[in-house]
Amino acid sequence: MPTPPLAGGTAGPAALRPLLDTVLAALHDGAALRGGPLPAGGPDTVTPRTRTATHPLIPDHGTGPHHALRALVTALAAGAADPAHPHCAAHLHTPPLALAAAADLAASALNPSMDSWDQAPAASALEADLTSALATEIYPHAPSPDAVITTGGTEANQLALLLARERHGPVQTVCGANAHHSVARAAWLLGLPEPVVVPAPTGTLDLAALDDALTELHRPLLVVATAGTTDTGEIDPLDAIADLCTTHDAELHIDAAYGGPLLLSPTHRPLLHGLDRAHSVTLDLHKLGWQPASAGLLAVPEHHHLTPLHHHAPYLNADDDTEAGLPDLLGRSLRTTRRPDALKIAVTLQALGRSGLADLVDRTVATAHHLADLITKTPALDLYDRPTISTVLFRPTGADDHTVATVRRTLLQRGHAVLGRAHAEGRLWLKATLLNPHTTPQDLQTLLDLVTDTTTDLLTGPPAEPLTGSQADLPTGPPAPEATPPAPEAAPQTSPAPEAPEAAPTPAPATTHPTPHPTESDTPR
Amino acid sequence: MPTPPLAGGTAGPAALRPLLDTVLAALHDGAALRGGPLPAGGPDTVTPRTRTATHPLIPDHGTGPHHALRALVTALAAGAADPAHPHCAAHLHTPPLALAAAADLAASALNPSMDSWDQAPAASALEADLTSALATEIYPHAPSPDAVITTGGTEANQLALLLARERHGPVQTVCGANAHHSVARAAWLLGLPEPVVVPAPTGTLDLAALDDALTELHRPLLVVATAGTTDTGEIDPLDAIADLCTTHDAELHIDAAYGGPLLLSPTHRPLLHGLDRAHSVTLDLHKLGWQPASAGLLAVPEHHHLTPLHHHAPYLNADDDTEAGLPDLLGRSLRTTRRPDALKIAVTLQALGRSGLADLVDRTVATAHHLADLITKTPALDLYDRPTISTVLFRPTGADDHTVATVRRTLLQRGHAVLGRAHAEGRLWLKATLLNPHTTPQDLQTLLDLVTDTTTDLLTGPPAEPLTGSQADLPTGPPAPEATPPAPEAAPQTSPAPEAPEAAPTPAPATTHPTPHPTESDTPR
Repeated sequence: MPTPPLAGGTAGPAALRPLLDTVLAALHDGAALRGGPLPAGGPDTVTPRTRTATHPLIPDHGTGPHHALRALVTALAAGAADPAHPHCAAHLHTPPLALAAAADLAASALNPSMDSWDQAPAASALEADLTSALATEIYPHAPSPDAVITTGGTEANQLALLLARERHGPVQTVCGANAHHSVARAAWLLGLPEPVVVPAPTGTLDLAALDDALTELHRPLLVVATAGTTDTGEIDPLDAIADLCTTHDAELHIDAAYGGPLLLSPTHRPLLHGLDRAHSVTLDLHKLGWQPASAGLLAVPEHHHLTPLHHHAPYLNADDDTEAGLPDLLGRSLRTTRRPDALKIAVTLQALGRSGLADLVDRTVATAHHLADLITKTPALDLYDRPTISTVLFRPTGADDHTVATVRRTLLQRGHAVLGRAHAEGRLWLKATLLNPHTTPQDLQTLLDLVTDTTTDLLTGPPAEPLTGSQADLPTGPPAPEATPPAPEAAPQTSPAPEAPEAAPTPAPATTHPTPHPTESDTPR
Repeated sequence: MPTPPLAGGTAGPAALRPLLDTVLAALHDGAALRGGPLPAGGPDTVTPRTRTATHPLIPDHGTGPHHALRALVTALAAGAADPAHPHCAAHLHTPPLALAAAADLAASALNPSMDSWDQAPAASALEADLTSALATEIYPHAPSPDAVITTGGTEANQLALLLARERHGPVQTVCGANAHHSVARAAWLLGLPEPVVVPAPTGTLDLAALDDALTELHRPLLVVATAGTTDTGEIDPLDAIADLCTTHDAELHIDAAYGGPLLLSPTHRPLLHGLDRAHSVTLDLHKLGWQPASAGLLAVPEHHHLTPLHHHAPYLNADDDTEAGLPDLLGRSLRTTRRPDALKIAVTLQALGRSGLADLVDRTVATAHHLADLITKTPALDLYDRPTISTVLFRPTGADDHTVATVRRTLLQRGHAVLGRAHAEGRLWLKATLLNPHTTPQDLQTLLDLVTDTTTDLLTGPPAEPLTGSQADLPTGPPAPEATPPAPEAAPQTSPAPEAPEAAPTPAPATTHPTPHPTESDTPR
């Protein structure tokens, strides 16, 4: 086998082109094989099928680039939970824009590493400009706003706690019961005291309880507020929390991983009033920013707040090199080798502009409100509350928590929909996190029909096996040899057939596998 | 502007295709504009040029996807230090294989997130199989080898220290003076005592000194050894270190970020004898594995060693979902949202097989030995030592450290070569880290000619300004309006012209910019 070609240099693009053709064909074929938001059958079907299609992972002799790309990319696409499908709406799991994914290819091909100037001359300049521009969106009146790029909100929250620790020593974190799990995990990682958790009985941090906690606790204190909670998408009362922090001499970090991009929408920006009073802000553009993972940021109002990240490694930032004008990049992250995630973000912002991003944000929020409207009109469903951003909690009327959990798993098992789950007001709810700006009202109606039909099946179907295992989650009924993906216009399915995992075909490279008919909802617009 | 298309679903590939055409054209044009391993002129030229070409980053109204991709990707490529160029050889900064970059596009387009099964049904199965297979390469005789995917060696080393902390409490790390800077940084992050540093006067950890240290220090102890140091590419005596750890009841972590892939080469595998005696091993496939960043791993001999990473977040791994058979993925990383880096790695391993990877490893090591041979034959250059892996240290005969540092910066400033630097035996050396399997003997000879010619310029040129700043690093001489990239066959340049940064053209979208003649060394094979 000749030495395989590289992605870089002037010859790279010609080497990439035929390989990309294979990837695009495999992505298409895999999505068609899947025929819905996720493959049917659950882990018991998908795991062995994927294993068969990708075996052997480390052969003695290679199968060649086209065969390997076709086999593995087809298997990955056929077995994806694809956020571009309107019925894949469980998590803050965004459908990436095509232009952002295309830009990300250039990052892979050039492979700049952001830990020294001589590995990333232009990429480091682009990153510096981008982080400064985004930090200025968050802190428009601050003296020297700056930001560092992270792998996501989890790393950004970790850095926020680390910066507080370095400023003040062993800081006590105080957060709401609605805060992201990464806050407690960061305290554990950093050897800090476990966070004090303030109740959030209505979904947002309780101000009186926070006041009490800040009165009792010893400083140094770091309050973590959330702008867009994972469970309900609610936004803590940021301005009032900032007031309490001022009163009690506590610092404030705001986790705006989800809600941060509302800043770009003139309509929704007021929801974030008070954001710029925080000592640091987490932002994730792989959520409401339509970037492929990862695209996180931690922003601060003053550049020098990042000083504790400074670090010295003579092979990367020798003193005499720095004195001679080579930028010192090592203090921009705790990572060393680092992908230029700035590129896809910058391409997206320049291509769409504020108005284009605002349009995507506004559409997504409107979609969530439309779903809430439809739920309100459906007697068989209860709505938790109107959405703040784009998260909608609902549940089948009268169902117990076990049924709600089983409805979710049955939809997954059948390959019909990917919905999330959240506890609120002491009950379990189905969670739709809407991030797809192409989702139509018809898609939403079909999604609700799937939920109500599945609930009916579960509650009125023939006596079922105990619902304890993934297979047992399915109602009993006549076995069918093949998954039947629902069309959006499908009549309610009163007798759904459970999948027969043992009959599931291997998706790749089995080109003879019958392709399900594409339906409207299979083809994201 | 219509809502921009998504990368996923059956329609994604058709939306991606024209955008990828724009990206490939921009990558080609940017590389041609650059005309060498990196742009000439240093930060003072590259930063403003990049800024101009990418401005405005956040316009009110977007410029559209093709314009933005063309402008930003061209600027990034024109301003890259491209590891696919044979004269870009400073760091463990790999030139990615085209097939790995192509696979990475599929990861961006499908955007599986590795924190829950319902975001990554097939990707999580593929990752589980890949990490198990790679861990088995490292621990062939262990009961249940496993690995987690990281953003690189830095995160893997951090996890190694974290796992030791969770097993034993505040563990004392002991590492060589040759260990990676991330070891000390991890201890700082995790609130652990600063590492005790054992001398490594010959480039590898001194066994007698380690024995003394382990005798004196209080347990719990974690020794960190290195298989492939950053400065010289040397490998600590792993087996002897493991013996000492056994004797002194210390645990052992081996940072094989660089050297780990030698395992795949029957020729070079013996260099890693003793690797499988470590409690954990760091491996980076974005170094000697030709993956775009990032592709790190931390391997352990027994699956249950990863238990301290387990974590509970009800929206991602509710107990009843886990009991019902949905895999719990949250304990596979400290990150939450996580890109499927397993895909590109798996495609590469399957496409090339062990034999193909071994061939790349063997070629790369042979290239380093050839460079050492050429240096030995060049009277004006001194060789530090024969390479262990693919790092070669050398210096102009009789030059002082200041001159060595200035030669490196001058090569950068002129856009002629990207070489690294390392201290060894009390002196500063130029460092060539060879990772490009396409580099030819002629490329290596040209690289050495560039070094000797630049040294001659600096030592014999007209009286220069004091060499304190990036511009001042250049010898004085007649200004030239345009960079003149050297052809590989170029005669020694006795009167090089410094770049005039103010005359540098904006690379994008300036399609009228004169393209330097492509030369052999501009076109990686």
